[in-house]
Amino acid sequence: MAEIRNILFIMADQLRWDYLSAYGHPGMPTPHLDRLAANGVRFNRAYAQSAICGPSRMSFYTGRYVTSHGSTWNQVPLNIGEWTLGDYLRPLGLRVALAGKTHMPADLEGMGRLGLDPESADGVLASQCGFEPYIRDDGLHPSQSVSPDLAYNRYLAVQGYDGDNPWHDWANSAEGEEGEILSGWYLRNAQFPARIRAEHSETPWMTDQALSFIREQGEAPWCLHLSYIKPHWPYMAPEPYFSMFGAEDVCPVNRAEEERSQAHPVMRAFMNHAEGRNFSKPGVREKVIPAYMALIKQLDDEIGRLMAELEEMGRLDDTLIVFTADHGDYLGDHWLGEKELFHDCSVRLPLIISGPGLAKGGVEDRLVEAIDLVPTFIDALGGEVPSHRLEGRSLLPLLKGNAPRQWRDVVISELDYSHRGARLELGRGVNDCRGWMLFDGRWKYVAFQGFEPQLFDLENDPDELEDLGRQSDHQERSRAFQARLFTWLTEGRNIRATLSDEAVEQRTDSWLKKGVVFGEW
Amino acid sequence: MAEIRNILFIMADQLRWDYLSAYGHPGMPTPHLDRLAANGVRFNRAYAQSAICGPSRMSFYTGRYVTSHGSTWNQVPLNIGEWTLGDYLRPLGLRVALAGKTHMPADLEGMGRLGLDPESADGVLASQCGFEPYIRDDGLHPSQSVSPDLAYNRYLAVQGYDGDNPWHDWANSAEGEEGEILSGWYLRNAQFPARIRAEHSETPWMTDQALSFIREQGEAPWCLHLSYIKPHWPYMAPEPYFSMFGAEDVCPVNRAEEERSQAHPVMRAFMNHAEGRNFSKPGVREKVIPAYMALIKQLDDEIGRLMAELEEMGRLDDTLIVFTADHGDYLGDHWLGEKELFHDCSVRLPLIISGPGLAKGGVEDRLVEAIDLVPTFIDALGGEVPSHRLEGRSLLPLLKGNAPRQWRDVVISELDYSHRGARLELGRGVNDCRGWMLFDGRWKYVAFQGFEPQLFDLENDPDELEDLGRQSDHQERSRAFQARLFTWLTEGRNIRATLSDEAVEQRTDSWLKKGVVFGEW
Repeated sequence: MAEIRNILFIMADQLRWDYLSAYGHPGMPTPHLDRLAANGVRFNRAYAQSAICGPSRMSFYTGRYVTSHGSTWNQVPLNIGEWTLGDYLRPLGLRVALAGKTHMPADLEGMGRLGLDPESADGVLASQCGFEPYIRDDGLHPSQSVSPDLAYNRYLAVQGYDGDNPWHDWANSAEGEEGEILSGWYLRNAQFPARIRAEHSETPWMTDQALSFIREQGEAPWCLHLSYIKPHWPYMAPEPYFSMFGAEDVCPVNRAEEERSQAHPVMRAFMNHAEGRNFSKPGVREKVIPAYMALIKQLDDEIGRLMAELEEMGRLDDTLIVFTADHGDYLGDHWLGEKELFHDCSVRLPLIISGPGLAKGGVEDRLVEAIDLVPTFIDALGGEVPSHRLEGRSLLPLLKGNAPRQWRDVVISELDYSHRGARLELGRGVNDCRGWMLFDGRWKYVAFQGFEPQLFDLENDPDELEDLGRQSDHQERSRAFQARLFTWLTEGRNIRATLSDEAVEQRTDSWLKKGVVFGEW
Repeated sequence: MAEIRNILFIMADQLRWDYLSAYGHPGMPTPHLDRLAANGVRFNRAYAQSAICGPSRMSFYTGRYVTSHGSTWNQVPLNIGEWTLGDYLRPLGLRVALAGKTHMPADLEGMGRLGLDPESADGVLASQCGFEPYIRDDGLHPSQSVSPDLAYNRYLAVQGYDGDNPWHDWANSAEGEEGEILSGWYLRNAQFPARIRAEHSETPWMTDQALSFIREQGEAPWCLHLSYIKPHWPYMAPEPYFSMFGAEDVCPVNRAEEERSQAHPVMRAFMNHAEGRNFSKPGVREKVIPAYMALIKQLDDEIGRLMAELEEMGRLDDTLIVFTADHGDYLGDHWLGEKELFHDCSVRLPLIISGPGLAKGGVEDRLVEAIDLVPTFIDALGGEVPSHRLEGRSLLPLLKGNAPRQWRDVVISELDYSHRGARLELGRGVNDCRGWMLFDGRWKYVAFQGFEPQLFDLENDPDELEDLGRQSDHQERSRAFQARLFTWLTEGRNIRATLSDEAVEQRTDSWLKKGVVFGEW
């Protein structure tokens, strides 16, 4: 019988759920991911726990909501006391490694407090989110602070790319007519091809790292987090991908004048960020989005190459393969750029899972969260899911076509925008910038500290253009969602995460067994 | 100028706030604590974060609410990632030690995950709640599981007390007419004196440990947590204290027939525990409470001895002295025994603080919480209070008579009764037993998962005999409290506890400084 022995956990960075043909994009053919979906289950309502890299990933890796793991934004260290994927899978006999990005900031203060040397074996794992850093590369390397040890730059140098930071000068820049470097840090240069040859760009290089690790493992079981840096900005695509897409392939923008004229204060402040202003200017989307699509096309080709190699190695017979993203990208929709807020283009995820013994070609509409992956992996490997710590639930029943009758009624996502300019514009303190999204499959409720909630009806307004939050006939519904948020805060999370439910069951009223008598006459 | 260099943090176990003459008890003279109050500030509205040893103490030691530190009941390990008092005071140059009880269960799984050896120096601190265990003794030593290394038993053996467990056989048992041992595990034996001589009983022994530590320190700065085991049960008092109190000294019971006939379901389930049933039987209070009072009297004498020695050593001139308890004791009030629920006799604390340069003889009515002590200590020593991690606030301004105009509007306490028989009686799961108390100085609101809330008006009903929670004219108030609970859950705690507020301020919108450009055209 087919058995899952390995896990290939592939993540793309900032990949919108709807920019894949498997999810219906009309002009973005991604045949290799289509094939993965045809051989597995495509989740149609998967959501990130936060629509920004750091907190979203910390939820992916810990299996816990942002309020529980506490890493509320990029570069907020993950508390040393938080367990991560590797802590669960390593005891099951797997080598657990990383190729690519985690965005995990180590809790150096917490490690120092415990005398844990970050350079020790345990210290490295604790600093790398529980992954053995086969190759760690978070993907953004400004020349002002690039590491001289950056493996990708060393690789590029060997290939003959010159300069101190070929990541920037070649992989993420174009070339002007007079040979000048046109930096990918600026959106305007996305209209030119990257200087690098496609085969040396970041996506194939990361695929090579993954294949090297997988080959190295031979028959020994493994979990690899292959965490691609793209299509996250800098939006610089190499040829021949660059030329595959043009302005004519760009979908019409999804926005309404009323969104801007009657904007929720938090949304307005985000519209005023540079990315919101620039993506709203005429012509910007048409110049940037073709590069974004080219990067996705290249990613799909690399997935194809990876799958072909896995097949040849026989690994498709014993490997659970997951493809997802950490969050999406507004790309000008709703007058916004980047991510963070809670519209589907930002917070909804592509999620495709295939593996031996699992359903093929299925589409799953149940509400799924990023935190479901850790318990799914444990469950798929036959381990016991520590439900007192993990807050997600195993998707294995759904993957096997044995969906339970009861499933979750709501997905939850969170934001802490304290690090953003929006906070200054809104005049708020660093602890007053939290937001929560609850989505029940039809209604999406968004609450921000200090402001009226937003409410969207995705059945009648799938494009999320009409905020019903301030309409009097929806106050009752908003209140019900607020009550649901309260229930989640008090009952939906694991407060007692250091002791199992079974232990509490056994201990209930059990003092006498240990000889402690109290209250007896 | 007087300067605070040391901290003596004294805690009694299960000492009701109102069983001290300083707090108005008519028949319980505690002159030494009266004198401490006369030389310092007596806090009149101090509350525990939980009315049971473990979670209450973990809040005292971490400076964080129970929902934040996660040790929701006795023996639920404190996550290795939680910082404790010693982590804050040791860098300020103090030796931070324990003499007595912490009730802290180490997070051995969490330590194992990080490769932290519990026997190493860092491991010991992490296992002992950040305290150097000068002497650790949690006070309950059933003969079935007594440690052969128990220091107090070794001491008793040297004094000539025989048996494998003189803690039980001598210090916590009486003797029958035919020489048989009458175990203190049973309430009925509280009517007899303990077999031990007073000077060898637990309270003076613990005082000796403290004095030994303080002398050993000389002029080097220290923080000592002197954590007495008594007057926690076994309620066994030695002579001459035993004979100082009799049934005639026992205050009338505080309970109403209506409390029982119309009991809130959770309260009824607690009434049905052995301690509730037995303390409600005629004559039990009259036999047990005199022993409880005798133990308090002995404790007060020991405080007197300690203070006299400190004065002689000159330590009163440079030491902040805190006297408090972890929670109270129902002693039959409200048809209950033990603690855990949220009536004042259970959750309200005695709290007296004195030190050089602080107010003398003051009575402070502002709402104060156990979590305020850690920031108070740091502040008193001139350290910087890490407000992103700590959830209490420094009492130093109140102690110096410079109270800020804004103070907290509500104190919060929590309960997780999943380990108790009440859960079985109520047919609830191990994750469905949480309760919260909010008290604003007049109204006390108590919410339990799955039940209607309780509401008490302490202005018109200071004895808390009338539960207004089900009265229709108080629904509005209960809803307002529920909203306040929501606000606390979302804004009143520190979710982002690994990065300071100042760091977030500095980082806001600061990517450009590091060379990361995004959203710019």
